Amino acid sequence: MAAVDFSAFMDELATVSGRAILPFFRTALMAENKALGDRFDPVTEADRAAEAAMRQLIRRQFPQHGICGEEFGDERLDADYVWVLDPIDGTRAFISGLPLWGTLIGLTHRSAPVYGLMHQPFTGERFYGGGRSAGYKGPMGARTLKTRRCASLAEATLSTTSPALFAANERPRYERVERETRLVRYGYDCYAYCMVAAGHIDLVIEAGLKPYDIVALVPIIEGAGGVVTNWQGDSPAAGGAVVAAGDPRIHEAALKLLSA
Amino acid sequence: MAAVDFSAFMDELATVSGRAILPFFRTALMAENKALGDRFDPVTEADRAAEAAMRQLIRRQFPQHGICGEEFGDERLDADYVWVLDPIDGTRAFISGLPLWGTLIGLTHRSAPVYGLMHQPFTGERFYGGGRSAGYKGPMGARTLKTRRCASLAEATLSTTSPALFAANERPRYERVERETRLVRYGYDCYAYCMVAAGHIDLVIEAGLKPYDIVALVPIIEGAGGVVTNWQGDSPAAGGAVVAAGDPRIHEAALKLLSA
Repeated sequence: MAAVDFSAFMDELATVSGRAILPFFRTALMAENKALGDRFDPVTEADRAAEAAMRQLIRRQFPQHGICGEEFGDERLDADYVWVLDPIDGTRAFISGLPLWGTLIGLTHRSAPVYGLMHQPFTGERFYGGGRSAGYKGPMGARTLKTRRCASLAEATLSTTSPALFAANERPRYERVERETRLVRYGYDCYAYCMVAAGHIDLVIEAGLKPYDIVALVPIIEGAGGVVTNWQGDSPAAGGAVVAAGDPRIHEAALKLLSA
Repeated sequence: MAAVDFSAFMDELATVSGRAILPFFRTALMAENKALGDRFDPVTEADRAAEAAMRQLIRRQFPQHGICGEEFGDERLDADYVWVLDPIDGTRAFISGLPLWGTLIGLTHRSAPVYGLMHQPFTGERFYGGGRSAGYKGPMGARTLKTRRCASLAEATLSTTSPALFAANERPRYERVERETRLVRYGYDCYAYCMVAAGHIDLVIEAGLKPYDIVALVPIIEGAGGVVTNWQGDSPAAGGAVVAAGDPRIHEAALKLLSA
């Protein structure tokens, strides 16, 4: 457990990153990606500006902490506390104008995710977790985040960013779960995990994740009462193939089909 | 063309419907759908309350007009002006807590869509069109909507709600187009069409639409410079299989693959 309450500082990071990103959302900038040809890599100025702003704040406030970020690489990963940053998770949603990308700000203590925040600056929403609780602030007010009960896969709403993102050996296992669920939604990146924490979606399954795609989301899901692991049932903090559930019962049911 | 400017009245309809729907968004109400068993039909109290409020306003203001709505059926469809209403387009997104559903308010004059508005009350966004122009009002201000240029499918971002929604004879034709495009996004319902109008997405292809799923969107896309037809190249106002594009060149290219 973290000895310090980092939540006010994380709010500050969210504010500076949001300020850096929003001017680039839904501008002609996005057209530039087209020049990259077939290697579609929607890394934008917004991404870089936001991460630079957050790194500057972290270095000033916590010079002894490490930083792992998507845009500017790693610093002091052997430190006790390491900040894990993804300025724009869901870059494809971002360049398509859809307000479902998010800024992911995570903090690990000796490799374990202890605080996490997802910020969607366009809708003005923050989902955060740590110290066994999770909360939400948005345009309609603030509240505690709590996953919902879901007894079986047959009652579950499942979400994944795209079925096309699974590797050849992962896809049949994913599809085994998809076939058992009641409703499937594609395309929501980090927002889907937050909807698990908020009790609107029951299950998220993804693969090919980097640590900065998932670390910030772990304390949010766990703080809301959910379970998140990799497909082997171990800590998801290293990324890879991940399964997050609001109710431990369907986490177990999904894991059985994914790990077989 | 409509002889009267209906835009102020449409704004009023959007306001009353938004007020009726928002209290139901992200509440425990959604759990009730689970009781419906396998026939998953996310018709909510919100849907009904919003449509009732809009119908009441229309009947009072324009008693001679017709109304076609998802929840309460048809009235006077032989009138010159007919209002075409879908209180919650994207009910699956709605029950999953995702702010990409929208209230669709369309007006036809002798069967041709002449005014349309999409309202997303959670994000506070309105996309509207009519009389050869289209506009946007949102949390970051107001602006004119204009589609972007896109010379070929190889440069296009394509969106569809879910590839699973196509009928057996439609899916191979859809997939022919998908294979040619640069980036595909699933899951956005009416929001995707609005992103075409706003110049962030190039192409939307869907099937199985009802008139109230598309009529309101036609003046928005056309007013922004785009093209929307059914897969035969005719008016999409009757619903069915629809293709919407920001640039007429990729509409033509997609139509060739869809109609063959």
